[in-house]
Amino acid sequence: MDRVTMADVAKAAGVSVATVSYVLSGKRPVRPETRVAVEAAIRQLGFTLNSAARSLRTGRSALVGLVVPDLANPFFAQLASALQEHVRDLGLHVVVCNTRADRREELAFVREAVQQQFAGVVITPFRLVAKDLKPLEDAGVPVVVSADIRLDGVDRVEPEARAAMRAALTAVTASGRRRIAMIAGPRDATGGDPRLELLRALTGQFGTVLPHGMVVRGEHTREAGAAGFGQLMGLRHPPDAVFCANDVIAVGAMGRAEELGLRIPGDVSLIGYDDADFASLVRPRLTTIRYPAGAVGAAAARLLRERMDGRSVPKTLRVGAEFVERESV
Amino acid sequence: MDRVTMADVAKAAGVSVATVSYVLSGKRPVRPETRVAVEAAIRQLGFTLNSAARSLRTGRSALVGLVVPDLANPFFAQLASALQEHVRDLGLHVVVCNTRADRREELAFVREAVQQQFAGVVITPFRLVAKDLKPLEDAGVPVVVSADIRLDGVDRVEPEARAAMRAALTAVTASGRRRIAMIAGPRDATGGDPRLELLRALTGQFGTVLPHGMVVRGEHTREAGAAGFGQLMGLRHPPDAVFCANDVIAVGAMGRAEELGLRIPGDVSLIGYDDADFASLVRPRLTTIRYPAGAVGAAAARLLRERMDGRSVPKTLRVGAEFVERESV
Repeated sequence: MDRVTMADVAKAAGVSVATVSYVLSGKRPVRPETRVAVEAAIRQLGFTLNSAARSLRTGRSALVGLVVPDLANPFFAQLASALQEHVRDLGLHVVVCNTRADRREELAFVREAVQQQFAGVVITPFRLVAKDLKPLEDAGVPVVVSADIRLDGVDRVEPEARAAMRAALTAVTASGRRRIAMIAGPRDATGGDPRLELLRALTGQFGTVLPHGMVVRGEHTREAGAAGFGQLMGLRHPPDAVFCANDVIAVGAMGRAEELGLRIPGDVSLIGYDDADFASLVRPRLTTIRYPAGAVGAAAARLLRERMDGRSVPKTLRVGAEFVERESV
Repeated sequence: MDRVTMADVAKAAGVSVATVSYVLSGKRPVRPETRVAVEAAIRQLGFTLNSAARSLRTGRSALVGLVVPDLANPFFAQLASALQEHVRDLGLHVVVCNTRADRREELAFVREAVQQQFAGVVITPFRLVAKDLKPLEDAGVPVVVSADIRLDGVDRVEPEARAAMRAALTAVTASGRRRIAMIAGPRDATGGDPRLELLRALTGQFGTVLPHGMVVRGEHTREAGAAGFGQLMGLRHPPDAVFCANDVIAVGAMGRAEELGLRIPGDVSLIGYDDADFASLVRPRLTTIRYPAGAVGAAAARLLRERMDGRSVPKTLRVGAEFVERESV
């Protein structure tokens, strides 16, 4: 069948093409009964020429919301680009929603995504729990959680970071470090801090431990990294190796080390997480655990597409992280 | 008058509260005549409790689109945060749309903003021209252009950078540099490169010139910065001071300088633009012209609000840039 045009819709509804256009664009008011007739004709003819029509037909927009806790972290900019690459052929457009790790903002974007009938949502929740995502499911908006944390009943992309963390510990202990510490995420973040749990689980295998006193907590910000590093260095027995929950924290720690006159890695080893683009810009270049944003975006897009194609059983994809040795260990 | 509730709407329309909720959320199909009755009751009662209702009432979403050419440039992440701060009390939420400086993507987001009836759009156009923004105006979507370039008939936020550029040239020439060059934006960008024009206009006042052979062009990327710097250094008489159209370009140039064994500022001075957050992270710390993202976001929000309040005459706000002296001159 040939493509259905706006003229076909106008004819079937017994209105002008301009009226069809007003219904589609919302540019001018249209009488309710006229709109009903036009919408009925659109549905009947399966008019799908453009996103306006698709939106009316399916009740969906062409927008995919990427909901992130910190837009200033370049990892999420890279993730946004990768996701866009992998949904472009579906005619979808990624919009990035920055929640600043604030639960109210997270909830607000979930509401908007439901209200605007987004084509999909990829979210790195920071303080949301599984039931907060329920409205998306109820509204038929496919949702993918991209995070280390386990949330039941939803599609997820998570890192497989055990080997990378083991490699990091191998490098750290090979350089003679034994007093391991971590600047972790906040205690009230959803699912705690899986990166901390992984580090703790592995330190035993390297003849060392990660005592509670060597774990400081804060937001995923440069300020928190600086504060946490200062706190650790003020201990009676300060650490000689500091793992960070992400690279943003690590860069904050690096700045504080410079202020304190401490050499990295001479006095303290520093290890980040993510491999954000500035990790290779800072001096010393940051040794880190790369969680490849490109592969994460591809995996999230794959899960979204499968949902759009009808898959109903939740699924998890794992993306391998790798240890990137630079100059800070 | 007390706040109108969903129960009031349900009563007026002669339906259940659940049905009103289905109409608002689109979660379940509702018969067209029922929907018409509910929408009529909503309009009649002025139901405005939440964004769902507002969207129905005004035909607008609660989303403000920030359309940017490069999400990997932290300047735009900072701008997004500032804009969000200044529209939060209106119940609006900023979503960031990354166009990769690609004209087709820019047009696609303009279409989506019209189609989804965004509450507003703040755009840094890279390859769009004024008439491409016309559909937004026609659809009654307030739009603010945030850019150096002049676009007629639209609200704009632009930098006032003359004094800052003069201060930069003062510092550069004071350090004995006379062979000025620039890594500018692409030739086909909308409005050319106003930062290049400003530099060219001012060099004469400092007893030097900016010859065409000392201007190389490329995208606003690190790769283009590296390539442009390499090209300049390959000249028979290479420059001893290189201005860059933004900090992303400058960081690319800095990397190439290191590869070439050139010292900054020993051999060449390097000057950025924006003061993105990595400018103080790189070594040497980047001397740059700060265009304060916070003030830009505040100005853009002010223009949006005035439009929502009924202003119809286009207006331009200027935000002062300042010279930030660090270590690269």
